[in-house]
Amino acid sequence: MKEKYEDSYLYRLRHSAAHLMAQAVTELYPGAKLSIGPPIENGFYYDIDFPTPLKEEELESIEKRMKELSKLDQRIERTEVSRDQAKALILDATIPGMGEDVAEYKLQLLDAIPEGEAISFYNQQRTDREGVQHRFLDLCRGPHVDSTKEIKAFKLTSLAGAYWRGNVKNKQLTRIYGTAFETKEELDAYLEHIEEAKRRDHRILGRELGLFMFSPRVGTGLPLWLPKGAQLRMTMVEFMNNEQMRRGYQPVVTPHLGNIKLFEVSGHVYNYRDKMFPFMEDEEKETFILKPMNCPFHIEIYRSQLRSYRDLPVRLAEMGTVYRYEQSGEVTGILRARGFTQDDAHVFVRPDQLLEEFTAVVDLIQAVLKKLGLTEYRARVGIKDPASDKYIGDDENWRLATEAIQNACDAKGLEYEVSVGDAAFYGPKLDMIIKDALGRDWQMGTVQVDYNLPERFELEYIGEDSKPHRPVMIHRAPFGSLERMIGLLTEQYAGAFPFWLAPVQVAMLPIADRHNERAAEIAIELRDKYGFRVEVDDRRETLGKKIRENQLQKVPFMLILGDKDMENGTVGVRCREEGDLGPMSLESFVEKANR
Amino acid sequence: MKEKYEDSYLYRLRHSAAHLMAQAVTELYPGAKLSIGPPIENGFYYDIDFPTPLKEEELESIEKRMKELSKLDQRIERTEVSRDQAKALILDATIPGMGEDVAEYKLQLLDAIPEGEAISFYNQQRTDREGVQHRFLDLCRGPHVDSTKEIKAFKLTSLAGAYWRGNVKNKQLTRIYGTAFETKEELDAYLEHIEEAKRRDHRILGRELGLFMFSPRVGTGLPLWLPKGAQLRMTMVEFMNNEQMRRGYQPVVTPHLGNIKLFEVSGHVYNYRDKMFPFMEDEEKETFILKPMNCPFHIEIYRSQLRSYRDLPVRLAEMGTVYRYEQSGEVTGILRARGFTQDDAHVFVRPDQLLEEFTAVVDLIQAVLKKLGLTEYRARVGIKDPASDKYIGDDENWRLATEAIQNACDAKGLEYEVSVGDAAFYGPKLDMIIKDALGRDWQMGTVQVDYNLPERFELEYIGEDSKPHRPVMIHRAPFGSLERMIGLLTEQYAGAFPFWLAPVQVAMLPIADRHNERAAEIAIELRDKYGFRVEVDDRRETLGKKIRENQLQKVPFMLILGDKDMENGTVGVRCREEGDLGPMSLESFVEKANR
Repeated sequence: MKEKYEDSYLYRLRHSAAHLMAQAVTELYPGAKLSIGPPIENGFYYDIDFPTPLKEEELESIEKRMKELSKLDQRIERTEVSRDQAKALILDATIPGMGEDVAEYKLQLLDAIPEGEAISFYNQQRTDREGVQHRFLDLCRGPHVDSTKEIKAFKLTSLAGAYWRGNVKNKQLTRIYGTAFETKEELDAYLEHIEEAKRRDHRILGRELGLFMFSPRVGTGLPLWLPKGAQLRMTMVEFMNNEQMRRGYQPVVTPHLGNIKLFEVSGHVYNYRDKMFPFMEDEEKETFILKPMNCPFHIEIYRSQLRSYRDLPVRLAEMGTVYRYEQSGEVTGILRARGFTQDDAHVFVRPDQLLEEFTAVVDLIQAVLKKLGLTEYRARVGIKDPASDKYIGDDENWRLATEAIQNACDAKGLEYEVSVGDAAFYGPKLDMIIKDALGRDWQMGTVQVDYNLPERFELEYIGEDSKPHRPVMIHRAPFGSLERMIGLLTEQYAGAFPFWLAPVQVAMLPIADRHNERAAEIAIELRDKYGFRVEVDDRRETLGKKIRENQLQKVPFMLILGDKDMENGTVGVRCREEGDLGPMSLESFVEKANR
Repeated sequence: MKEKYEDSYLYRLRHSAAHLMAQAVTELYPGAKLSIGPPIENGFYYDIDFPTPLKEEELESIEKRMKELSKLDQRIERTEVSRDQAKALILDATIPGMGEDVAEYKLQLLDAIPEGEAISFYNQQRTDREGVQHRFLDLCRGPHVDSTKEIKAFKLTSLAGAYWRGNVKNKQLTRIYGTAFETKEELDAYLEHIEEAKRRDHRILGRELGLFMFSPRVGTGLPLWLPKGAQLRMTMVEFMNNEQMRRGYQPVVTPHLGNIKLFEVSGHVYNYRDKMFPFMEDEEKETFILKPMNCPFHIEIYRSQLRSYRDLPVRLAEMGTVYRYEQSGEVTGILRARGFTQDDAHVFVRPDQLLEEFTAVVDLIQAVLKKLGLTEYRARVGIKDPASDKYIGDDENWRLATEAIQNACDAKGLEYEVSVGDAAFYGPKLDMIIKDALGRDWQMGTVQVDYNLPERFELEYIGEDSKPHRPVMIHRAPFGSLERMIGLLTEQYAGAFPFWLAPVQVAMLPIADRHNERAAEIAIELRDKYGFRVEVDDRRETLGKKIRENQLQKVPFMLILGDKDMENGTVGVRCREEGDLGPMSLESFVEKANR
């Protein structure tokens, strides 16, 4: 069994690195008040109350002093004391970092230690060449490593504000983040990974590439899509629509709100209220709810006419924008927003059609992920926990549905893990987990069998026996959400979207004004004849500057147009991945681009 | 000058027809209590309290009795009486329609006549062959025609419920609607027109053709688009997107709600609250508003980066679904709904670009209406009322903008009327009024110049002088609203949409099961190769039934596939307008369809 992080040497090392940093700070910033300094998932931090605000660039000098202190091979020793002794130590101004002036937070921490619990300090100590004893004491439960010289591979990474005890009513302290590893190689690899993640951060790329924005006046987690992002959405939507149409899905469009009655029948008012935006109610009007889900609307459409067993499956698809009130701390760019668009569909099937339909859905998901270039993924089948009684629907139906999901995966060669107890209360499900270029897991598409809503809405179809029967519902969204998928793709491709997805596919760069007219003609030809998305960059800037900027915008192809090209009927092709490809006829370029 | 309807002979004729109906009713339904019976725009009505509910089919016998009473040539005479005499008449059970039992409403009407005003009855009287005097008196201001025999061309058209004095707390009476004309020809033309309007009613066609539906659980005025309607929307949206993209518009997508702060800055919270859905507010969350307009969102996007004079015009376009709380009595299918999608764009221009941009917008609108087959329209330019001080912005700007609108119309050969005082308070505007196949006027697309929002949001661009300047905003929506335009087109074409718009363009009708496979192949070929929207009708029904049903669905083309066709590689083409066109090769059909 794998050792728990909290029990590891690395955890102790990072804890000791926090103390080492505190020691350096007390030397460099007299009057700085220490509070807490724990190890965390990827490193450590220390929250400190500085007499004057610390600047990012000062981290370097703290780091430098830490290196020196590390090399001094200070022994790190635990010492247990009584509460009174502890208080005396904290107030002893002869010890670095201690004394009445700076004791504010440590005294509170001491008070917070329950009666009867051991009170310990960790002491970094050494004797210098002149035989003088040095020490740095910190109130701490530990454990730590044995000597500061073990702390070799570390780095202070960033500054942040943090309220004392996490309470906004308390003073805001300065949090210094850092990390430490056993070896320099591990540290470098980690820092490289962080840099890479930052380079791919969809929030930064979203702004740089003009994909989306947020505005405090519009609200947290409510993205506004800029022209290039809106184009990207359109391309994704068109692709999904085509895939779905040819698979027998029918488009529908439903409102973004509904009367409260609808959500009473569906049950969302009772079991989903936390995630809903405030209701729209006033005395003179009906009460409405902004929709957190599309299902009840699609059900109303299913119910609007009599359905026969021959009409099933009925597949109603909508790019449905829904709104959920995520906690503001959980909102993360477009990966987790308060408004997002599900590539939603609800399939109403006879029980005997479950396997066939599920297989078709798995096939669709595989086709979609392949087209998006997402090849590293796994599936998780969430099944019933036999010990729990939270599930609705009869056992035989559950058995059939679970079997159908597994058989569908088998038929499509999709490997899956089975997760007991991970089913929804209304039916078993299949989730797709995608691994991105940085090795992170993302839960994206989902397929769920539902026995609950058909019951609540009393759905029916007329069977071959001329009697009414209850259909089964499948909820499915291959992207999961358009926003989340675009967020993932942005990070996956670091903004360099594949040709078919790129908002601008071709940038025309006329070298001088006299080439502008022809450049515009070529742009129209590429658009009208080949459906390419082309922008003409006819600003009066140097060619070098235009190339650099379009490179930063990650445009797949630049077509440079100068005198020679006008003469020979060519364009100078520059490919995002392959660089300068030299002059080509327009037809050769189109062939190259479409390859 | 045209005679006012209220002063016309037709108006008197219809008023007398109402009295004639009342006379027939009192004869046929003893105990029926009369209330009021005025002429209205296209006819007349009478509100009557029947002892037992009246059925639609009983209208015929009332009409029959009216015809007999008309032919009796009753003289219609006015008689003025004192209040006491009037009361005595109303309570006189020997007069038809009078007497204590049925006097309830007439007595209240008498009471409501102000002191000093003349009190008059109109009397329909005759002497029969035996010399007996007959009369029918009704409390009425008049005037009327001279004899019942003038009332020859009339028709009772429908029944409805109506509260006494329009108050829901009062008793609901039965309202009988009818109409009358001077000649039978006029009556027939009118009834034909009504039939035609009914045949084209988008609410009925919307249901029959599977375009959209409503659900009380979702809410009044909130349409759910069924598959064929959703397809129709997609086709319209794609067409508009293409038109706009090639004219330099950029797509954006914005949320359906925003923080209240946004609408405080825009001013909508103060001057548009009536039309807004209830706000989303609760104690723990921010307050949000469902958007009634897209403008503030597009403005936030404009504001998100520094704009230079060279960047303008910036044209931000969105198919933006907005929600407005129309009074439930005003909601009419999708023509006037509470949720609708504007083909919205906001163009931010320099003042010197107004004429050029306005001309481009007029050109776009003309192209759009032409493609939709709407050729009968006129334009109305709403300008400032010089006498009013409700307008904001300086006079010189108004002059320039008004001139720009008129010059743009002149340049594009668009005739317009000028409507003084019809400008918005924030700028002059241009409205398009479309005349439909029934001669009705519809206000559709609009273009508005706006000096207000740029001011409120402090919009800027950096001019050639390196100083900040304020741009002008143009709001424009060529369709007006997608829903309203689809409603209009549905009525205009009576559901028989032109080929490019038809949700299903081609129905494949295999004659027997052995033709199904080839039919499916042809459907795929037509879809993949030519982009046609094709449905295969492979139900086991007779060919006759399939043809009838697809005809009712107004599918432009049916392709019939039998043994002969399989042999010869043809399809039997049936055109919605031209009927049976006989067998053709697939290529010939495609050519025909695309013509």
